[in-house]
Parts: sequence; structure tokens; C-alpha cells
Amino acid sequence: MEVKTRELEEMKELISYLQQRDLKSIRTFIDELHPYDLGQYFFSLNEIHRRRLLTVLMSNEIADLLQELDLKEQKEVIIALGAKKTADVLNLMPSDDTADLLAELDDTKAQKLLTDMEIGEADKVRALLRYPEDTAGGIMTNEYVSIFRSHTVETVISFLRKEAPTAETVYYLYVLDFDRTLVGVVSLRDILISSPETTIDDIMYERVISVPADMDQEEAAQILERYDFLALPVVDEHHRLLGIITVDDVIDVLIEEAQEDISNLSAVGVTDKEIFVHPLLSARRRIPWLLLLLVIGMATANLLVLFEGTMDALPVLVLFMPMIAGMTGNTATQSLGLIIRGLSNQQVSEKNYRQIIRQEGFVGGIIGLICSVFIIIMISIWKNSIELGVVVGGSLFFTLLIGTLVGTLIPLVLNQFKIDPTVASGPLITTLNDVLSLMVYYGLATLFIQYLL
Amino acid sequence: MEVKTRELEEMKELISYLQQRDLKSIRTFIDELHPYDLGQYFFSLNEIHRRRLLTVLMSNEIADLLQELDLKEQKEVIIALGAKKTADVLNLMPSDDTADLLAELDDTKAQKLLTDMEIGEADKVRALLRYPEDTAGGIMTNEYVSIFRSHTVETVISFLRKEAPTAETVYYLYVLDFDRTLVGVVSLRDILISSPETTIDDIMYERVISVPADMDQEEAAQILERYDFLALPVVDEHHRLLGIITVDDVIDVLIEEAQEDISNLSAVGVTDKEIFVHPLLSARRRIPWLLLLLVIGMATANLLVLFEGTMDALPVLVLFMPMIAGMTGNTATQSLGLIIRGLSNQQVSEKNYRQIIRQEGFVGGIIGLICSVFIIIMISIWKNSIELGVVVGGSLFFTLLIGTLVGTLIPLVLNQFKIDPTVASGPLITTLNDVLSLMVYYGLATLFIQYLL
Repeated sequence: MEVKTRELEEMKELISYLQQRDLKSIRTFIDELHPYDLGQYFFSLNEIHRRRLLTVLMSNEIADLLQELDLKEQKEVIIALGAKKTADVLNLMPSDDTADLLAELDDTKAQKLLTDMEIGEADKVRALLRYPEDTAGGIMTNEYVSIFRSHTVETVISFLRKEAPTAETVYYLYVLDFDRTLVGVVSLRDILISSPETTIDDIMYERVISVPADMDQEEAAQILERYDFLALPVVDEHHRLLGIITVDDVIDVLIEEAQEDISNLSAVGVTDKEIFVHPLLSARRRIPWLLLLLVIGMATANLLVLFEGTMDALPVLVLFMPMIAGMTGNTATQSLGLIIRGLSNQQVSEKNYRQIIRQEGFVGGIIGLICSVFIIIMISIWKNSIELGVVVGGSLFFTLLIGTLVGTLIPLVLNQFKIDPTVASGPLITTLNDVLSLMVYYGLATLFIQYLL
Repeated sequence: MEVKTRELEEMKELISYLQQRDLKSIRTFIDELHPYDLGQYFFSLNEIHRRRLLTVLMSNEIADLLQELDLKEQKEVIIALGAKKTADVLNLMPSDDTADLLAELDDTKAQKLLTDMEIGEADKVRALLRYPEDTAGGIMTNEYVSIFRSHTVETVISFLRKEAPTAETVYYLYVLDFDRTLVGVVSLRDILISSPETTIDDIMYERVISVPADMDQEEAAQILERYDFLALPVVDEHHRLLGIITVDDVIDVLIEEAQEDISNLSAVGVTDKEIFVHPLLSARRRIPWLLLLLVIGMATANLLVLFEGTMDALPVLVLFMPMIAGMTGNTATQSLGLIIRGLSNQQVSEKNYRQIIRQEGFVGGIIGLICSVFIIIMISIWKNSIELGVVVGGSLFFTLLIGTLVGTLIPLVLNQFKIDPTVASGPLITTLNDVLSLMVYYGLATLFIQYLL
């Protein structure tokens, strides 16, 4: 069925049932619905219909629904449910999602909900709340299946029958030693093709790849992605299993990081998920950057005053200012884009910094040469002055070379200091690059014209 | 084990075995190695060692290895293997990966390899080669497990035992009708917890979410991501199952698209995966953009000539040119970043275009007001001239308002024409924005100074 048409039809169906308070039809409707779709439909209902729908849903369905909503909507649902029902629902939610939700609530409210929850579930959530949000520990769940190496395939299968409903994934089974050290992993696929009496020891894969709880979430996500795993175990310093990261959470991390990169590239400075906010709030968020840039703009104006003599002597130079600044910015951005991509897919790393800098230096030189020859010819024809062409073209050569090198070096330096190199395309560095190029332009022009005027 | 230390140690181990031609140790070493790691190590070996290692590897291991290599390395391996062995290896590779590899080879070579392969395998690959690379059909595999609704859980399990080694995933089983229409899906988890005599009909989930083969790969990837699936079925117009898309391929698509966005944002114009290329080639790729921008730069210079009168009368205006252009560019980029993010996570769509344009218009007005008041005060103090402050500040107000609106409207318009809105941050539009802002600046200044001088 085509996704969009289906959604529209189903939405209409649901609303008509809700209007008629046809609880039976609502039940049948919900039974086959995927939680994501339920979340979408819930989100589009008015408040009265939302509350009516909540009374029909069972606790486990609300648990599924909550995972699909954003924080604001989650809070709304929690308030509508009341404390007791909320605790019921949280018991049924995956521990990592409960932890994420509670981390966003104020502390007394979160503590209250934890005491209302079942002790076992609350303890799992508390264990997860200890880890910072953006680490492997922060995105892991402790609802995994662990087995012992001495077990037989038959024992494991009957154990799985019991565990399957609550575990986040049953497709990878982690093999522990008696002190809970991680010693192996078996896939459900392997279990399936082995005879019942085989012991796990014989079929497990011992070279388990795991990550420490304090690893950055992006790094952990890349490891899972690289190995095409469905889940990745997280261990403590004694190699004891703490939890697992599942592929769906990894996709979310990778998307979040990509969006963060795009936000960095455009410096909106919004880490918030909401696009629609009050204009005053939005303006307040963007203003600090802009005021900083205004101050830099004033400083640039101040620096340009130094060249007033040159400007007076050769006012035509002004006409090419936008071109010089623009071209330098563009070559810098090209190198920057290349380096960011190289760093993100590990093609550029410490061992080949020299090689990439040399390469970009050559590229900058070639680009500079071609563009300056081009501009010398253009200006010589248009302004009928080879001298002016040489001044502008010569400056262009140096600013392009510098632009390429700045675009190469800045992300590498930031990367060395463990700063996300995408911030390098932010307005601050772009603006500084503009200023630098104009200084070089007028500086060189000032040197040149002594011989030309 | 810490990933990096382990890699270094293992690499040394492998090289020493290869130098000593210790085939037995190499075998033991490889047995527990993950294909990704094997690929990494293979990549770092010299050519002699690579060839030596290939002689030790079994066809299925080479098949795993090939999937981890990039095209250039894959070709190198194929040449080293010879036609016959290559066909053996391709038989063992997942059909979608074989199709991707053959699509990159020249046609006669690909056809030759297909005729050398087993008929069944070659047919599967031919079926996949029909779909364009960037569609759902292009990233799907036809090595899935399909079952019939009348089967019992017991039959399915024994069937799975046989199919498990070749299927890409056994965790989702697709239920077909007799005409191969997709009627349901069952997870291996559900199979596990059901009693052996249950029929699939009773436990299958009928509301299967599927995509057509011609859907854009990014859209298909987003659907899988949204529903947290491990695989997504691809169907033809009669809803017959053609193949499945697996989560690991989806992650690759999402990363590829994010990198494409970053490349667009920096306009390197390189779709190639290689970072290290000959400087001349790299320069040739970047030059076309830059020459276009040079021409625009010349045109800008030409337009600025129109304002020479104003420049002569008030040369101090020149000092603020970089600031005006920079600030306009930055506000435009901020709005652009917001809209791109909103479009990518579906928060902005046709139904709220008006709302977002109104919001950004207000934001632009507020930002313009604050920045221009700030700059009026700054210039009045610094240059001791309220008039100059008003000219520059007034221009800044309008250019910021225009910048915000341009940054909002351009990605929306591009999106309407089905063009990726990230190209809007490309150098062309940035440059046009610069020119526009300077025209407004000098245009307004020209109007104002008639009353001020």
C-alpha cells in the first residue's frame, strides 16, 4: 500500500471512531497498527481525542506510543495518565528509553516516578542514568540476553522463549563467564542451525568486539556500522558486560550527528529539535553570533582604514573586493569540505596530514595560477590596464593559495584538539578568512602600486 | 579489547606470518577474524603479501573480503584471482553486492563473469541489475526468506535451518500468497515463542509496510529508520515481493546522503570516494565553479561602477562593505540551515510554508532592527557621525531582512522543484547573495546621501 494514501485514510478512520466513541472499532484498528503510525496519528489529534484514545490504550501500547513522541508530547501524555498509570507504563518501556525520558524531567518528578516503578525495572533505569547522554553508556540498554558457555542450544532456546518478550534483541546472545566477563557471542541464526545438544562453547564466536561505556556515542555508532552488527556490547574496565547498543539507536545517533554537522555549518546555534519557535526567542538565539560578527566587521573597517591611501590612489581596487573575498572563501570551503569528509570516513588521519597538506598546497597553487591568469586577461581587456590586472591577479593568486591552506589546516588543527571540524565552516572562521583575504589584497596592492603608479 | 591497540598487534602478527609463509598460523588467524578487519589488514599489506594472503583464503572468505573493499581494490583482487575463481567467489557473495560490483565493471567483462557464474546466482544478480542504483530496487537483495501462510512453525524452523546460511537475514520472514503477493511478516522472535504446531497465518502481522522498487533510496531508508525495522520489503505494482532492503545497507545510504549534503554545502563537486587524487585532477574538478564565480565577480565589479559617484562622495562606505556582505550571508545561512533541517526531518512541509516564511520574516526584522541600532550607535561614536551611522545601519536593516528571506525562500523553492535544498548553500547562491546585498547597500546609500550630504 502506498504509504501516504494509507496514512490519510487511516487517520480519517480513527477520527470517525473517536467521534462516535466506537471503542470496539478503535481497539481493532489499534491492534495491527505500528507504534510509529500510532504516534503520528496521536500527534495529529486534538486534545479531546488524544485523551479519549489514551483511555482505550493498554499500558504496553502506551509504552510503545511514548517512544515515538517527542519530549513535549511525552510530558503531556504523562500528565494525562497520572502518576500510577505512568509508573505502570514506564515498567513496560525499554529501560534505555525510560532513562532518556526521566533524564529530561525535573529531578524530584523523576525520583517520584522511579519509586512508583517496580524495583527491578527502576534499578535497571537507575543504572543507565549514571552515564552521560552522549556516551556509549548513555545510549545502551541493559535489556539484553546473556547466556553461559556451558549451556546447550536446547537450554538456550527454552530460556529465550521466556526472555524474548522483554529483551531489546534476541538475535545476538552474549556469552558470559561466571564473573559476568564477556567471553563470546552467538547469533540466533547460529543457534537455529545447530543441533539441540551442542554446547554454546562450541559454536560461540570468541573474538567479540565491544566498547567501553565512556566511549563517545558517535565513535561507538561508527564501530557498529563498520562491522554491520545489529547490536554492540558495552563493557566496564574488567570487561564485564554492562549493556548493549542496538542498531536502531545507532541510526538515530548517526542522523543526529549529521544534523549537528549541518547546524554547525550554518551556525544557527540551535540544538533544539523544534523548528517553529517564537520569533523573539529565535532572534535571541541567533543574535549573539551576529553581534560578534558585527564587532569583527567594525574591526575590519578599522583595519581597512590603514589602506585608505591605496584606496584613494587606486579607487578601482574597491570594485574587486567582493570578488577577492568571495573567491578566497570558496576555495577555503572546497578544501574544508574535502578534509571534513576525509576525517569522517577515516581516509585522512594523523599519518597522512603531511600528504594532504602538500596535495592541497599544490591544488591551491594551480587554482591560483589559472584564476589569476584569467583575471589578468579579463581586467586588461575590460579596464585596458595590464598593470591593474597584474595587481588584482597577483593578489588573487596569493589569497587563493592562502584560502586553500586555511581551509585545509583549520579542520586538521581542530581535529587534533578533539573539536568537531564542521565548526570550521561556521561564520566566525569564514569572517576571519574574509578579513585575512582583504588584508592580503590591499597589502599586496600597496606594495605593487609603488612601482606602478 | 581496545579496538586500536588490537588492530595494530594483529596487523604485526599477520605480516610476520606472511613473511614466514606460515600458512597454518595464517589460517588460524583468519578463522576468527571479522571480514571488516580482514579488509582493513588486506588494504594495508603490500602487493606481494596481498597475493600470498589470497592463496590462503577460501572462496567464501574472499567473498566476505570483497564486500569490505572499495572498487579499485576489488578490481585488483579480481585480476589476481582470474576469471574462474572470481566466478566462484561471486556465487558466494550476496546478490546485491555482486550486482553493485558488476555495475561498476565494463559491460563485456560483467557479462563474461555472469556466464561463468552458477545459473541461479547469475539470474538473481541480473534481476537486481535492472534497477537504477539510487532506488529501493538498487539497494535491495533478493536473498530473503519467504514462507507460506499455511505453514506451521515447525515446518518453518526446519526450512530455516536449510536457508539460514545463504539468506541475508533470517530475522524477518516474509509471508507470500500463492501468486507471490506479500501478505504478512513474522519475526524469528515470534516463531521462537510460538508452539511448533501453530500456523503462520495465526501469528503473522498482516499490516506489512513495503516500498515500490522505484522509490528513491533515501526515502526507503527513512521509512526503515522511522519504523526501527531490520529489513524492509520491496514490491512490484501487483504487490509481489521482489526483494528486501536490510538495515546495514540503509545505514550506508543515510551516511552517503549526509556526506552528499556536506559536499553540496562545500561545493567540491566531488562525488568520488577518494580523498587523495593528483593535484591537477583535483584542480580541474574545482576550477569550473571558481571560473564561474570569477565571471560573477567581474559582473559585480561592473555593477559597482554604477555607484562610483556615491563611493567618491562618501568613500567611508567602502570600509563597511565586507561587514554588510558578511552579515547578510550569515543571516541567510542561519535561515537556510533551519529550513534544511526542517525539510529533512519533515517538520517543514508544503502545509506550513506560509507559517515558516512568516516566522523567518519576523525574525529577520527583529535581527535587522537590533543589529542596525547597534551599528548606528557604534558608528556614531567611532566616526562621530550619526548620519553615516544611519546610512550604514539603515542599509544593514534591509539587507538582513532580505538575507533572512532569501535563506528561507531558496531552499523551499528548490524543494518544490525536487532539487536537494543543500545546494542552496553552494557558492553560486552565496555569491549572488553577496552581490544582492552590496547593491542594496549602495542603492540605499545613494538614496539616503542625497538628503544627508
